[in-house]
Amino acid sequence: MNVAIIGATGYGGAELIRLLQQHPDVTIQSCHSSSQHGSETVDSYPHLQAVAGMELKPIVTEEIARDADLVFTATPSGVSSELVPELIKAGTRVIDLSGDFRLNDTEQYEAWYNKKAPNAAVLDNAVYGLTEWLDTDLTKAQLVANPGCYPTAALLGLAPLVKRQLIDPNTIIIDAKTGVSGAGRNATTVTHFTEMNDNLKIYKVHEHQHTPEIEQVLSDWSSHAGAVTFSTHLVPMTRGIMTTIYTDAPEGMTTEKLVALYKESYKDCYFVRIREQGTYPSTKEVYGSNFCDVSLAYDERTNRIMIVSVIDNLVKGAAGQAVQNMNRMFGLDEKTGLAFAPVYP
Amino acid sequence: MNVAIIGATGYGGAELIRLLQQHPDVTIQSCHSSSQHGSETVDSYPHLQAVAGMELKPIVTEEIARDADLVFTATPSGVSSELVPELIKAGTRVIDLSGDFRLNDTEQYEAWYNKKAPNAAVLDNAVYGLTEWLDTDLTKAQLVANPGCYPTAALLGLAPLVKRQLIDPNTIIIDAKTGVSGAGRNATTVTHFTEMNDNLKIYKVHEHQHTPEIEQVLSDWSSHAGAVTFSTHLVPMTRGIMTTIYTDAPEGMTTEKLVALYKESYKDCYFVRIREQGTYPSTKEVYGSNFCDVSLAYDERTNRIMIVSVIDNLVKGAAGQAVQNMNRMFGLDEKTGLAFAPVYP
Amino acid sequence: MNVAIIGATGYGGAELIRLLQQHPDVTIQSCHSSSQHGSETVDSYPHLQAVAGMELKPIVTEEIARDADLVFTATPSGVSSELVPELIKAGTRVIDLSGDFRLNDTEQYEAWYNKKAPNAAVLDNAVYGLTEWLDTDLTKAQLVANPGCYPTAALLGLAPLVKRQLIDPNTIIIDAKTGVSGAGRNATTVTHFTEMNDNLKIYKVHEHQHTPEIEQVLSDWSSHAGAVTFSTHLVPMTRGIMTTIYTDAPEGMTTEKLVALYKESYKDCYFVRIREQGTYPSTKEVYGSNFCDVSLAYDERTNRIMIVSVIDNLVKGAAGQAVQNMNRMFGLDEKTGLAFAPVYP
Amino acid sequence: MNVAIIGATGYGGAELIRLLQQHPDVTIQSCHSSSQHGSETVDSYPHLQAVAGMELKPIVTEEIARDADLVFTATPSGVSSELVPELIKAGTRVIDLSGDFRLNDTEQYEAWYNKKAPNAAVLDNAVYGLTEWLDTDLTKAQLVANPGCYPTAALLGLAPLVKRQLIDPNTIIIDAKTGVSGAGRNATTVTHFTEMNDNLKIYKVHEHQHTPEIEQVLSDWSSHAGAVTFSTHLVPMTRGIMTTIYTDAPEGMTTEKLVALYKESYKDCYFVRIREQGTYPSTKEVYGSNFCDVSLAYDERTNRIMIVSVIDNLVKGAAGQAVQNMNRMFGLDEKTGLAFAPVYP
Repeated sequence: MNVAIIGATGYGGAELIRLLQQHPDVTIQSCHSSSQHGSETVDSYPHLQAVAGMELKPIVTEEIARDADLVFTATPSGVSSELVPELIKAGTRVIDLSGDFRLNDTEQYEAWYNKKAPNAAVLDNAVYGLTEWLDTDLTKAQLVANPGCYPTAALLGLAPLVKRQLIDPNTIIIDAKTGVSGAGRNATTVTHFTEMNDNLKIYKVHEHQHTPEIEQVLSDWSSHAGAVTFSTHLVPMTRGIMTTIYTDAPEGMTTEKLVALYKESYKDCYFVRIREQGTYPSTKEVYGSNFCDVSLAYDERTNRIMIVSVIDNLVKGAAGQAVQNMNRMFGLDEKTGLAFAPVYP
Repeated sequence: MNVAIIGATGYGGAELIRLLQQHPDVTIQSCHSSSQHGSETVDSYPHLQAVAGMELKPIVTEEIARDADLVFTATPSGVSSELVPELIKAGTRVIDLSGDFRLNDTEQYEAWYNKKAPNAAVLDNAVYGLTEWLDTDLTKAQLVANPGCYPTAALLGLAPLVKRQLIDPNTIIIDAKTGVSGAGRNATTVTHFTEMNDNLKIYKVHEHQHTPEIEQVLSDWSSHAGAVTFSTHLVPMTRGIMTTIYTDAPEGMTTEKLVALYKESYKDCYFVRIREQGTYPSTKEVYGSNFCDVSLAYDERTNRIMIVSVIDNLVKGAAGQAVQNMNRMFGLDEKTGLAFAPVYP
Repeated sequence: MNVAIIGATGYGGAELIRLLQQHPDVTIQSCHSSSQHGSETVDSYPHLQAVAGMELKPIVTEEIARDADLVFTATPSGVSSELVPELIKAGTRVIDLSGDFRLNDTEQYEAWYNKKAPNAAVLDNAVYGLTEWLDTDLTKAQLVANPGCYPTAALLGLAPLVKRQLIDPNTIIIDAKTGVSGAGRNATTVTHFTEMNDNLKIYKVHEHQHTPEIEQVLSDWSSHAGAVTFSTHLVPMTRGIMTTIYTDAPEGMTTEKLVALYKESYKDCYFVRIREQGTYPSTKEVYGSNFCDVSLAYDERTNRIMIVSVIDNLVKGAAGQAVQNMNRMFGLDEKTGLAFAPVYP
Repeated sequence: MNVAIIGATGYGGAELIRLLQQHPDVTIQSCHSSSQHGSETVDSYPHLQAVAGMELKPIVTEEIARDADLVFTATPSGVSSELVPELIKAGTRVIDLSGDFRLNDTEQYEAWYNKKAPNAAVLDNAVYGLTEWLDTDLTKAQLVANPGCYPTAALLGLAPLVKRQLIDPNTIIIDAKTGVSGAGRNATTVTHFTEMNDNLKIYKVHEHQHTPEIEQVLSDWSSHAGAVTFSTHLVPMTRGIMTTIYTDAPEGMTTEKLVALYKESYKDCYFVRIREQGTYPSTKEVYGSNFCDVSLAYDERTNRIMIVSVIDNLVKGAAGQAVQNMNRMFGLDEKTGLAFAPVYP
């Protein structure tokens, strides 16, 4: 299978290269960059020397579509909305890692992203690719909207309770923490080493564009779902997301029941690991891997449930889930090329 | 004023030395350690060379009480409960940095600390020293129970709303994050550099001993207060606590009103800095200082309030607040020796 | 091929599990631990859940030797010296990751390691496994002494110059810096997060046990080699070693010549990447991978050469080079199971 | 004493504010910024709220010179060279923290800084302010060129040996490591958190502009001094410099002699702490303070001396030494306002 990567100089693109280079059924046919074309991948990423050195090409959608069985667009929001329809029109299949094709409601998109919404016809055909909870057979999909990093962690943590209508979705509070790679490769004062090291920041309070994405999926799963509280913090680490989720509990809840429910819900999902009662994951325990680890705890003092989920934001939160979706699109075992251990310590 | 420090080889003790060495009205008369006596402070802490090198003495309460106007007990819970009554009996005044004299209810103490409660008569005379919200004149106090690090951050963030009965305390959820120095100086696998670096952990889920301390104070402030949800995370940084607090809002709330209320509530409190609407503190902005910075945000989508408060856990969360309380006990301006800037970056 | 890992709860053992689990020709038949046997690998390392969960077995050398084609001993120095002869005697092949079989001179071993030297007959048959510069065909080797992390980085950086007798080995100064995982998993005050974070330490000054290992190899390569200056620093990072090496230059040296010499020397070595003139590697550019990146710079002002080499201490400096040696022992392409990209960022 | 700070939005300027705000004899009369004037100090540095909030004013040299007894120019190289002569001409005294007035040889300046050298007459009157080794009475000085961070650490480490002609200066190799704040506040990809965290980099190989500064001082101290090898590394920490210095030893050297020599040399220097034989400083042990800690070790195997010196690059390496020089200029005890402990941990 020949694939092309557009936006190869961002962290999402670099991680796609790392994962696809190891994939037994894939050849990276070409890498593309709007700003760096003409240079080499190793000029941007010296770690790729000897592994995936190749020229960065310009973005000519027709040529790309002609040569590739699948295109990954790891481009910023607002760029994908222009590029993807051209690629689709030219006849190739696409997995888009931006936020452009995730929100069905174009008004929501324009309100939260502050950008013009993509073409409605293309958007209508996009499948939201939260792999473990797909309601579509991806082998037919032409466009997969790869989920955001935060929504992946939060939704995998919430799905069993919300889908079975066991909780009131309006009591959900998601306190999310991310490593700094989630902010991308552009240097800013906020993410300057000296400002971020040994520091903890809260950012985009009540304004994070992943909020409507989470709410949209919860609404699909439960007719009672409305607005959720979702906050985001920058932790002085490179990779990793932890979401600590609080919600009111239904009557008769126990931690045992929660753990049993989640184990059952995810029993066929290799990449979701439910922790034993009383043990909790740390972000480093999924570092570099496609796993999402989830712990559950019921607190009888407050009658609330706490859900803790962790992912590597660049893998299960971006490139890894994209490869998992690719495997589904082409009828492969979803684990192909992804069943390796986290890098620990 | 002559002071003694018991427990000088822990982080709380070392930070007391740093602060008291700079204090214009204080002489550190002696430092004591149960395990290291006979050695020098600089053997444990080379950074004190030329600044506060002195012998570590054994803990002989009568001698200490005889020579010191005030004793800081920076000893572990379970040790203070034995030591402090002896010091009080010997006639000196004490500021205790452990959790032993904070909880009025000895059953709660024994349940959460898993240790024997201290002498009831001594406990009854202990004043809980959340300096900004004292209801007692400390000049008469013989024993001050210095608040825990988490309760300091959380309670300073909650006080204006709870004391004015503006919110339902049962809707309070406190998502707390701490730097690793909060775990003390004892080396463990959990806090081993290699295990903690580039990592984020959740710990003591529903079991943290600061929970009843927070609840006790909230109950003092509001008759409706009951159990709160309180969770604790270890962030890969040395110092700093951030509490992100969620609570349901009363009708008609706005962020403007919140900021105005907090500015009014803390207008005479040098060490509590209320941030302007739309700006948020990071932990490093109080690093090494006695400040607590607080931001407020109302979210009309969910009708919830978010309060963000940050402190340096070793200063306002321990040694700094202890010095602030000492200033109060001896009739000094509370800022004396503490009005310096955070170390940034 | 069936392999056993003894010492599976240390970082070297855990990294072997990660690498061997991905290796197409290997089955991890059993993992062994003297202290943790009876528990599961995931009890020590939750990140291995679903990937390499298995029971930790006791160390019964005869059983292990009977069932395994190869045994990795990732045991501490002083333990391997006892275990390995038993395994050899029982007829299996061994790659030892400790320092016990690296020094030919048992007096040197006892002086630097402060332990009793291993059996001389077994020692004599051990092959020092610096893979790129082996002078033996490993397909016949029964025991490979896997090199130390620092010697690997330093020797790969020095080999082309020393082996061709281009420099005076007595002018070599190696200033080495390591991530903290090199100190192992045992919690100590020195490697406590709070003490190590945002900190840089120098340690084992003139006493590091890798000094005679470096000197022994240099002596094998050049009859003029004697003592070298070798210093070691702890950097607040998890993985990675950088050696900055200084040496007097021969007449007529230029950076161009150095780069050309090294490219030629390593042209058949996939895992050694020579950087272009004027560019330098950082440790993260080999993170999680088996690469060693090397840069060269001649300074005409001082007539000295600077060599910079970086490795991941747990991969090329331990488990990765062990797998590379395993590949050689069993006649496989040395890249098998190791040709993946570093994890960046 | 009224002082003005020009360049108050850089790290050097911010650190000057922190130190001068605590100084008992100083009033910060005004802060100036070319780019941020009109805004407040707290807009750039929220940590200064309540401590040193004030308006940032434009740079009008005549007004500044009229109102201030002393001006600190914490401006970039190339800017100071223009500003300082105007300030001097307007009659004020100046401490310049840039590199512009450190090199006597304007050709060297232009070669290493790639900027136009400052006015020769002004340069001739500049005193190089390595406080512990001044050969001038600063009470008469109108312009002090505050030393660079690296030269301060290296020269304090080398002075006793070089000034007494005990070593051959041509054998000096300085392997220097710095925290990232040394690179300033401008966000770049090299110092982006995600690129620098858990990483170690070497930079400006054979091109660092502090090289000629070190060589110039060594030449002043020893007629045999020529070029030195000086290399610079970026360590993932905020503050701190360590220089590991290697040099050939004279006959009959021992570590005891070295330690005794250094203790004697620095016996009247509060801010230089010589460590006992066999103990070594880490950078965090001087964090936030004006101390320089130095250890010595002689290696008989190689007949080389190793000197290890650490400073906080923003304090003894910049703002702290500037305040120490200010104290000297105005006849105060050099410790005034600076005799506080490092922040540890």
